[in-house]
Amino acid sequence: MTNTSLWTVIEETPELGNRQAHQETIFTIGNGYLGTRGTYEERYLNEMRTTMIHGVFDDVPVVFTELANSPDWTEMEVLVDGGFFRLNQGKLLAYERSLDLRTGLHRRFVRWRSPRDHTLELTFERFASLADPHLVCLRLKVVSVDYQGPVEVRAGVDGNPDNAGVVHWEWVEQEILSESAWLHLQTRATRLDLAVAVRLAVPEGCHVQGWDVHNHPTLVAEAQLEPGKELVFEKVASYFTGRESSQTVVDAKAALSRLLSPAWETLWQPHEQAWKKEWDACDIVIEGDDEAQLAIRFNIFQLLIAGSRQDDTVSIPAKTLSGYGYRGHSFWDTESYMLPFFTYTRPAMARNLLSYRWHTLPGARRKAASGGYQGAQFAWESAATGDEVTPTWLTHPKDRNALVRIWTGDIEIHISSDVAYATWQYWQATGDDAFLIERGAEVILETARFWASRAEWKADKGHYELNDVIGPDENHEHVDDSAYTNYLVRWHLRTALALVTWLRQHAPEAAQSLFTRLTIDDETLEKWREVSERIVIPYDPNTRLVEQFRGYFQRKDIRIPDYEPRTNSIQYILGIEGANQVQALKQPDVLMLMYLLPEAFDPAVVRANYDYYTPRTDLAFGSSLGPSIQAIMGCRVGQVGEAYENFMRAARADLVDVRGNVRDGIHGASAGGLWQAVVFGFGGLAFGPQGPSTSPSLPPQWQRLAFKVQYHGRTFSFDLRHPTEAV
Amino acid sequence: MTNTSLWTVIEETPELGNRQAHQETIFTIGNGYLGTRGTYEERYLNEMRTTMIHGVFDDVPVVFTELANSPDWTEMEVLVDGGFFRLNQGKLLAYERSLDLRTGLHRRFVRWRSPRDHTLELTFERFASLADPHLVCLRLKVVSVDYQGPVEVRAGVDGNPDNAGVVHWEWVEQEILSESAWLHLQTRATRLDLAVAVRLAVPEGCHVQGWDVHNHPTLVAEAQLEPGKELVFEKVASYFTGRESSQTVVDAKAALSRLLSPAWETLWQPHEQAWKKEWDACDIVIEGDDEAQLAIRFNIFQLLIAGSRQDDTVSIPAKTLSGYGYRGHSFWDTESYMLPFFTYTRPAMARNLLSYRWHTLPGARRKAASGGYQGAQFAWESAATGDEVTPTWLTHPKDRNALVRIWTGDIEIHISSDVAYATWQYWQATGDDAFLIERGAEVILETARFWASRAEWKADKGHYELNDVIGPDENHEHVDDSAYTNYLVRWHLRTALALVTWLRQHAPEAAQSLFTRLTIDDETLEKWREVSERIVIPYDPNTRLVEQFRGYFQRKDIRIPDYEPRTNSIQYILGIEGANQVQALKQPDVLMLMYLLPEAFDPAVVRANYDYYTPRTDLAFGSSLGPSIQAIMGCRVGQVGEAYENFMRAARADLVDVRGNVRDGIHGASAGGLWQAVVFGFGGLAFGPQGPSTSPSLPPQWQRLAFKVQYHGRTFSFDLRHPTEAV
Repeated sequence: MTNTSLWTVIEETPELGNRQAHQETIFTIGNGYLGTRGTYEERYLNEMRTTMIHGVFDDVPVVFTELANSPDWTEMEVLVDGGFFRLNQGKLLAYERSLDLRTGLHRRFVRWRSPRDHTLELTFERFASLADPHLVCLRLKVVSVDYQGPVEVRAGVDGNPDNAGVVHWEWVEQEILSESAWLHLQTRATRLDLAVAVRLAVPEGCHVQGWDVHNHPTLVAEAQLEPGKELVFEKVASYFTGRESSQTVVDAKAALSRLLSPAWETLWQPHEQAWKKEWDACDIVIEGDDEAQLAIRFNIFQLLIAGSRQDDTVSIPAKTLSGYGYRGHSFWDTESYMLPFFTYTRPAMARNLLSYRWHTLPGARRKAASGGYQGAQFAWESAATGDEVTPTWLTHPKDRNALVRIWTGDIEIHISSDVAYATWQYWQATGDDAFLIERGAEVILETARFWASRAEWKADKGHYELNDVIGPDENHEHVDDSAYTNYLVRWHLRTALALVTWLRQHAPEAAQSLFTRLTIDDETLEKWREVSERIVIPYDPNTRLVEQFRGYFQRKDIRIPDYEPRTNSIQYILGIEGANQVQALKQPDVLMLMYLLPEAFDPAVVRANYDYYTPRTDLAFGSSLGPSIQAIMGCRVGQVGEAYENFMRAARADLVDVRGNVRDGIHGASAGGLWQAVVFGFGGLAFGPQGPSTSPSLPPQWQRLAFKVQYHGRTFSFDLRHPTEAV
Repeated sequence: MTNTSLWTVIEETPELGNRQAHQETIFTIGNGYLGTRGTYEERYLNEMRTTMIHGVFDDVPVVFTELANSPDWTEMEVLVDGGFFRLNQGKLLAYERSLDLRTGLHRRFVRWRSPRDHTLELTFERFASLADPHLVCLRLKVVSVDYQGPVEVRAGVDGNPDNAGVVHWEWVEQEILSESAWLHLQTRATRLDLAVAVRLAVPEGCHVQGWDVHNHPTLVAEAQLEPGKELVFEKVASYFTGRESSQTVVDAKAALSRLLSPAWETLWQPHEQAWKKEWDACDIVIEGDDEAQLAIRFNIFQLLIAGSRQDDTVSIPAKTLSGYGYRGHSFWDTESYMLPFFTYTRPAMARNLLSYRWHTLPGARRKAASGGYQGAQFAWESAATGDEVTPTWLTHPKDRNALVRIWTGDIEIHISSDVAYATWQYWQATGDDAFLIERGAEVILETARFWASRAEWKADKGHYELNDVIGPDENHEHVDDSAYTNYLVRWHLRTALALVTWLRQHAPEAAQSLFTRLTIDDETLEKWREVSERIVIPYDPNTRLVEQFRGYFQRKDIRIPDYEPRTNSIQYILGIEGANQVQALKQPDVLMLMYLLPEAFDPAVVRANYDYYTPRTDLAFGSSLGPSIQAIMGCRVGQVGEAYENFMRAARADLVDVRGNVRDGIHGASAGGLWQAVVFGFGGLAFGPQGPSTSPSLPPQWQRLAFKVQYHGRTFSFDLRHPTEAV
């Protein structure tokens, strides 16, 4: 039925050099509870052996907190024919590694001639159960072609993982039982418990030995091979943390003891079923463009393994659970880029993600209060508590005595409206009144309170300003009246007022109690109305241009094409200060605004701004958040060729490693943006009173585009093709 | 012959709580190649299991470089009567831990009732061989009182040490042989090799099993116990690094294979002999004051295990090899506080330490050049290369967004003269012309060149100034014409000129070649003469006071006694800026100057300055470098009571943990200062044309003070008592 090559990421030769870390990211597997990078089972120099679990944050200098690298479960060393199996020893006769996106099965086949000149075939397979996210399973099949003798398998749990040199765990306890072992650790600062239990299933008649080494209990099995014989070893592991269990060791052990041994088959079936359900709801079919087809599935897969199905107190880190970039912190990347995918295909997961913001309102209130403001101000970088965790200073890359002040945590404030927007969008799409009443409303209203206190009344000008901010385009810091920010704030305050009205009508008791608790009274609402009516809204009717911020048009004008060919961002070429002085953008800013608030800008305005800002936007090497939005706006103005070019930039962001930083993890926002580009860009999906509809602008080579969305509990399938001319 | 209690540090109950880290520091053993903190053989929560090897630096954020915690050799887990031996499980029937300062033997005796109610006696003993510093040895004797059954011993080498959360090592290779194992690691940034080999000797008939777990190879032995039976297990280990070996694994293995098994007896005899030689040369006898007696020996022991006998490219870290404080960096603490002990008792070690500065002249030249100066400027904090490694910024303890600029690396410049002073003192004491000609001269002359370029000519005043500096008293930053600095610079330039003359007479060829290489010509010498004659030298003949720096007397006057009682430093009480505004000193500054340059100040001047500065100096909670120098100056002005009080502050610095920071390591400068206080203070040692002589001022309770010093290759013994009145 399916063409496997459109569902499978393939590695044809092992990567143990420059591309090693990139491939580790690409071959990440996960299940929304944990993510495990695609390091090999046996160890290699410079590998970043990493398993990350949602919400397991620990303190770290400079960036305050980071997701702790948890003990690895994939270690499986094979000792055969007098030495260790290694890809860089002996001779590789055949090799293929694959990641099956349909099921998240990570598989590696190796036909290997040992240094002593015997041939063996090894197949390693692993998956992280989507049906029971505490469970992960790994299986090795060894077939001897011409080797006779023992094979030893060593499968441990190493309690010494580090985050690029930083240790987060302290040993608590461990035990080795007959064919299993467990390890109990605790984070050093946040004192979070973690237990991992492992069990080794071995060929019949083979004995398992336990090496009870401190902080690295290891199960060892030895069996005899002979030509033609196949041996199977299976390692199954379970993880529990103090976030969801008060008895992590007991739970981790019990999760294994409930399973048959070997467990693979028992685990596989529900896992496969769970994945089938996901793809039934989320798959996008693109016919006529295999690269785009595989890329969209790869990016959807990344979103599906990054979002939690069980836990509504965690968000998705900017680099998902696949690397150390941004230390596991969450940004507006979640709400503005990834969330629409979930809202329109997996609304229960979207609800979890939005609930994270509701749970972290206390941190957002602390942030607002620390700046002297009211309500709640979401952190630019957010982790366990919602307190701001953007690093304040980073070392200057070229001068070890100098520091670079990072301002985003102080003044990139648009995120509070982005969260409100995503909350409102979720409600609009789902009609989930219960969520809105119980959680969403508080988020929207508390952040509205923040804006009302943050806006600066200028009596001489008779208007409100929002000065000293950073908009989406981070090339320009400390700007005044950012168009993106101000338009969103106007929308936010208007929406908050509408929400108050709706709540009074539809949930009067809950509304009353909420307004009392948040001290929202008539005066509050009057202030919101006043700010929304009198906030600076940049727009020049003569040129139809929206000025990105006050004075932007006075900056030195440059065009990106004048700098081609290049291999670095404009910001890198001109320097941080240099880029700040010119009109070059790191990513769409006014165009992002027009994407989010289509009703506020008529087509001629969109066209004028598209034409103005596009040649000034660094789409090739600027922010990875840029190309997908630019693609959508390209479709809106009928520039499908340009749109496709930018779409492919996003499609290749991880798979081709355009920016050279995939080693740090998957570009989660780009993955989410890619989905939006297909559905809202090429598909032209929109929601009217009759529900969803499409006005496609397919790239010429796309013969077919099919996707599904959920809207108010119903599933809508779209199957789009180019119009056929009548013969 | 000897009273053991005056040679032994005792711990009467195990410390597993607040004092744990303090005791780990106190029970550090070492041999000048490595130091191992006094953690227990079995593991406990919050322990800082640490072995540090001289010169093994690796990169770290913020403070640039630190001594890497190396794999621990003391791990020995005992599994008996169905569980692990633990001090905090079962019942302790008897306990004593001791450190024998005569031999560095660390011994722990435990009479223990297991949770299953059997009684065992365990004696753990360990030492770091002084005769062969690559070797360390650990022995466990287990005696069963009423237990019958197996006892299992697990002795591993853990390749996962961290420096308070920072990992420095990458695994390279390992192997387990029949009764031994080795582990080969490399530092992550500096790519320094390290190999550790271990061997386990076990009771007859007992088999050793190898658990070849990645990065933690472990040797395991099981034997049978019965009431009355004693079993002995011995773990011997050898360490080699890439600093002294190009084949670390080969060397580490060979060092063990040369030894009989068990090795204890073979290793002990030369070790004990080596220690006897040290104490024959260095011991100080104080009769009538047991606390002082033990303390001086403890502090001498710390110096003897910290200084290298073999390696002339390493210094002594401020916290020796016993803790993470100051990250293994070296300061003037080495030259001005610790070095006199070595110069006058172990001159070969002093020569090594001074050679470190000669080896790091390239780094010191880079530091001078980076400031626009000539010659060599020694780093305030120095590590492998001599480049400045003082952190530029540290996080503000009370505001996570604020940073504190650390200025010592920029402007605490007196260290260049302190090194020159120590070099000259060494030559004066030893007559080691070869060292002076080959190394010492270059250090003195290159730093003199620095001063000549650093001094600022003030044409309007007709003199040279040294502005924007920090003197020894770090309560006052950015001061001008620090008396300590300027007097020392004058001495330094005069000495450099004298040295040039001496070299021309005594080593004309070497001199010529050196002067050519350093471009020292007549103009250079003329400049030195001019600066030495016209540099500001603060002194007021009316008051006889030396003003600590220009304007010091205008700062608000305070007296320390007005702040008593207190438990914190004046700087803590007043804040950094507050302390800067007043006359309170962190440590003697002008008095330190008068200690170093006695010929420059007549007794009445010393007396006047002692009287002025003493009540303004925070001797109880200021710098740990203060009390010993204050004690010496107290003796000089006849204030033996005050001198003794300050002497005891230094004597207790580590043993009693006056400042609460002994967890970070031994106060090396305090240890060296304590020796100086005894010998130069109470002993009144001085060197005249006839050699050394003493003018004692013994505290009343001291019945006898005996010590030895070396001078020009001869040993001088002093045996001092109070003068007896004629009856």
